[in-house]
Amino acid sequence: MALYMDIHRNVEGISKEKLDEAHKKDLEVQAKHGVNFINYWYSEDEGAIFCLCEAPNKEAAAAVHREAHGGVADEIIEVRQASK
Amino acid sequence: MALYMDIHRNVEGISKEKLDEAHKKDLEVQAKHGVNFINYWYSEDEGAIFCLCEAPNKEAAAAVHREAHGGVADEIIEVRQASK
Repeated sequence: MALYMDIHRNVEGISKEKLDEAHKKDLEVQAKHGVNFINYWYSEDEGAIFCLCEAPNKEAAAAVHREAHGGVADEIIEVRQASK
Repeated sequence: MALYMDIHRNVEGISKEKLDEAHKKDLEVQAKHGVNFINYWYSEDEGAIFCLCEAPNKEAAAAVHREAHGGVADEIIEVRQASK
């Protein structure tokens, strides 16, 4: 498993309620793709969302958003986490 | 206190050792600015670093990196964390 940060930019109409709903859908389909969404951070003002997940590969991470709600990320970057 | 994700892109020569050293310097000066660096994620291949911190404002978050090692972020976005 690798760790990925996906980045959504210029997303219009972000709200906590919409993200809660989208995230719930991610969680419903993630196991099928071997993915584990860990956390996410968002800015309503900037239209930005950052999702951190574990996935077997980048394609699997993308597949979850695509299947769950269609709101695919602009970028998915494989990352390492600080040693803390 | 607010939560910020700062984004560094196109950083050349990222290595775990260099980031450990830079992060150590951040931790040494952060209290002076009322900032708490929580975690960070990075990609050597993509030259990307994402730092998550609590800070009283965006300027304070920027000041820590500037004073500690000069490696200021390209963007600092105030974020909310998923309710989990």
